[in-house]
Amino acid sequence: MSLVIVGSLAFDTIETPNNRKEKIIGGSCAYAALAASFFTTPNIVAVVGEDFPQDVIELFKSRGIDTSGLEIKKGKTFHWEGRYDDDPNFRTTIRTDLNVFRDFKPNLSQEYRNADIVFLGNIDPDLQDDVLAQVKNPKLLAMDTINLWINTKKDGLLQVIKNVDYFFANDEEIKLLADEKNLIKAGKKILKTGPSLVAIKKGEHGALVIEKDFIFGMLAYPCEDVVDPTGAGDSFAGAFLGYLDKVKSYREKDIRTAAVMGSTMASFIIEDFGIERFKKLTAEEIECRFNAFKQLVSF
Amino acid sequence: MSLVIVGSLAFDTIETPNNRKEKIIGGSCAYAALAASFFTTPNIVAVVGEDFPQDVIELFKSRGIDTSGLEIKKGKTFHWEGRYDDDPNFRTTIRTDLNVFRDFKPNLSQEYRNADIVFLGNIDPDLQDDVLAQVKNPKLLAMDTINLWINTKKDGLLQVIKNVDYFFANDEEIKLLADEKNLIKAGKKILKTGPSLVAIKKGEHGALVIEKDFIFGMLAYPCEDVVDPTGAGDSFAGAFLGYLDKVKSYREKDIRTAAVMGSTMASFIIEDFGIERFKKLTAEEIECRFNAFKQLVSF
Repeated sequence: MSLVIVGSLAFDTIETPNNRKEKIIGGSCAYAALAASFFTTPNIVAVVGEDFPQDVIELFKSRGIDTSGLEIKKGKTFHWEGRYDDDPNFRTTIRTDLNVFRDFKPNLSQEYRNADIVFLGNIDPDLQDDVLAQVKNPKLLAMDTINLWINTKKDGLLQVIKNVDYFFANDEEIKLLADEKNLIKAGKKILKTGPSLVAIKKGEHGALVIEKDFIFGMLAYPCEDVVDPTGAGDSFAGAFLGYLDKVKSYREKDIRTAAVMGSTMASFIIEDFGIERFKKLTAEEIECRFNAFKQLVSF
Repeated sequence: MSLVIVGSLAFDTIETPNNRKEKIIGGSCAYAALAASFFTTPNIVAVVGEDFPQDVIELFKSRGIDTSGLEIKKGKTFHWEGRYDDDPNFRTTIRTDLNVFRDFKPNLSQEYRNADIVFLGNIDPDLQDDVLAQVKNPKLLAMDTINLWINTKKDGLLQVIKNVDYFFANDEEIKLLADEKNLIKAGKKILKTGPSLVAIKKGEHGALVIEKDFIFGMLAYPCEDVVDPTGAGDSFAGAFLGYLDKVKSYREKDIRTAAVMGSTMASFIIEDFGIERFKKLTAEEIECRFNAFKQLVSF
């Protein structure tokens, strides 16, 4: 068993300065799993309502995603509505209907419990902790979070962070969690609480990987038209871990490449609404963009 | 004649969250010339009052800076007072005493008019334009600016930008000037107005070079303690141009290296107040930091 992703599947209603899309497919699990599917065969643990489109589940399957951990429950799928500012780094949540997600209790199959890599999407820290209690000796435990949990369940969240290997968050979240304004200091402070690696997503400014023995940074791909920033962070984490699952190695060299793969996939997903860009993305495009990242920073 | 730098020399009074320094040496010309002096023998055009310390002029000379274009006028030296927020990217000007700088009329010697590279520091666009009228056929004209001139003298500023090769500014300034929130679009918009290269300084997020044929980006050096951010941008530009003056070439490869040299010198100057860090900086430290920049982004 390779990579297991636990997270949300949702309908997202998204408003940008130039457009509005009603109830398109979203959720951390959708983005992370699709991004990872370009490198490995991920397994998902999530819940949806009866209204979740079968063709999306078919899309997941066609991309090699194992959906046996996807629970279809009586009721409606989680619905999130948000609005982006002119500056795509800022968004406002307008509405959250948890629906069937309210009672989500991730329960991993025996096979999933033996996963090499487990990624805990940005769900409630209590649920993340539940999953930690289920998995047996994984090679890599990774997690993401959001401001909501830092503000409302900090102690529980820190308890989970203590027990994972890789912690993904954006710059704002890291600074908030560490109560520290210098990003490097903030990252190192989190590192001291348990994880061996902190991956900091900085939107248009790229990403930083702070590991015990090295720091690796990459720029964002110079994008002139960010259509929809939703899912960039989840795609980053999904591709990062999907790549490591593919190469079955966690050496410095592999981590650096994994982080660029994460940035590469994040740079694609923002080019269209929701998961649209991943539907038509090719291996050639990924290779070409990866090389463009290399070119961008070469000297 | 190689690199001529036209700009301000000043006393700066600087307040940071943890410290306050009264009337230390500053000004765009001081930072740019000292940074450049690690690569070439720059020439300065500036004005100071009789109160400007002779030992600083001796320091300039000891670093190979030609001070024959430095005018010492009856009166007091330009004095700027500013305060930095907890976030070193934000500063507030508390007080500006122009003093002898009020009547600064840069007048280049015949020798200086034949310079290969001329750098116009962030002075009044009218003065920058005066200098442009004096120089004869330079290989490279570069300029910097500040928000003040974008807000108060935009037309005059655009007139100068039209006639230079390299335009240096920070991300906020570029967005303001181009009236465009996407940084890449903003940079490309400025590029269309005349320059062949726009160098965008992004503080803790590094810098971007947008050239007609390529984009090059670099991260900031991961600094845990920014003591004083003053002069980082001027040091970036000074080292960038000083390096190009040293290699006497403006090919893509050289521009990429020049930009990293700029970032390298900027990463040092913020480690101490004012120009202090440059006083004790060694060639070995520069080489070591340059290699660290390479390591930071290698994959």
